[in-house]
Amino acid sequence: MSWFQTVVSLRARPRGFHLVTDELVGHASYLRQVRIGLWHGFIQHTSASLSINENADPSVRTDLERWTRESIPDGARYFAHDAEGDDDMPAHVKASLFGAGVLIPIRDGHLQLGTWQGIYLGEHRDLGGSRNVIVTVMGE
Amino acid sequence: MSWFQTVVSLRARPRGFHLVTDELVGHASYLRQVRIGLWHGFIQHTSASLSINENADPSVRTDLERWTRESIPDGARYFAHDAEGDDDMPAHVKASLFGAGVLIPIRDGHLQLGTWQGIYLGEHRDLGGSRNVIVTVMGE
Amino acid sequence: MSWFQTVVSLRARPRGFHLVTDELVGHASYLRQVRIGLWHGFIQHTSASLSINENADPSVRTDLERWTRESIPDGARYFAHDAEGDDDMPAHVKASLFGAGVLIPIRDGHLQLGTWQGIYLGEHRDLGGSRNVIVTVMGE
Repeated sequence: MSWFQTVVSLRARPRGFHLVTDELVGHASYLRQVRIGLWHGFIQHTSASLSINENADPSVRTDLERWTRESIPDGARYFAHDAEGDDDMPAHVKASLFGAGVLIPIRDGHLQLGTWQGIYLGEHRDLGGSRNVIVTVMGE
Repeated sequence: MSWFQTVVSLRARPRGFHLVTDELVGHASYLRQVRIGLWHGFIQHTSASLSINENADPSVRTDLERWTRESIPDGARYFAHDAEGDDDMPAHVKASLFGAGVLIPIRDGHLQLGTWQGIYLGEHRDLGGSRNVIVTVMGE
Repeated sequence: MSWFQTVVSLRARPRGFHLVTDELVGHASYLRQVRIGLWHGFIQHTSASLSINENADPSVRTDLERWTRESIPDGARYFAHDAEGDDDMPAHVKASLFGAGVLIPIRDGHLQLGTWQGIYLGEHRDLGGSRNVIVTVMGE
């Protein structure tokens, strides 16, 4: 096995950060064949993000959203791009800041996440809908 | 085909965000040979960035620059590193925040960008000059 | 040679940004076998980060920490997650913003970093302790 690719459709979620590790890699039988490799998730949207953060206390997710709303405010006076509402342009800023993808090492069939790490979907729109993630796995 | 690497020199641009998808991958005949793979762009500078955002409305680029100038201000009182001017240290902050590279899945000879996604050059200096990007493609 | 993976334990450092290029890749004999490839470093923690920035003037590191403390303040009124202290939740924000990993092209046995680029450890806790980085190298 060397390369594998699939598309995962994440169900619609409210604005904020959500732990999606299980949804993205929960039943990934393809991992079993990888001794050393990399797992890549890429979100095909410009108003949502993928990043890595704590998988335990949900207050990390709510506080991350609080910082984000405080620092990239809806309807800030300097934003002109608001065709889709006050949450439109802030969502784009967050997409570039948090990033569209995560790349995680694989060893002996398992993602090498730290004990406290998980994959966060950043849903940056009020009504973002479902989100497509392209999963690519390479390894030996 | 498994690995390919080249250097693309992006022409000098004014400070701000610029859509460079075509300049980076517009005539990429090497992509045709890739069934499943990844495209990596890496900018060899510490005052410019690569990220992914909307490829349509140019106001996303100007608003992203507005947020950036507002939140990482030129000549902020807490910056000591200003040998090259008031835009020097803010450019370094932006380089780490937006990142030096983007990694994009490939399928059947095409980048798997979402409908509205493109690659942004963040030019964070007033007079940044041309910028080198190392493009690496791997796949089968 | 196609794949290689190892774990590097970075020694404990004070809060702030630290240049760790040599510690991560200084004696990397495995690189010599790579003609074209990619080097990936992934930090297994949610209160530290890896990013790329200037390898020369140390004031870039101290100023980057100053911006970070100013913009993601310890003990901000909107943070609820403070079980481990005022630096707890800000460290999580920084982990997602700066990112858990860096991906760097390799050519003819050498990382293709620009002249002024190095790898930064962002230590975002007051007492973070040692930090594990998974290094994965792929190439031909």
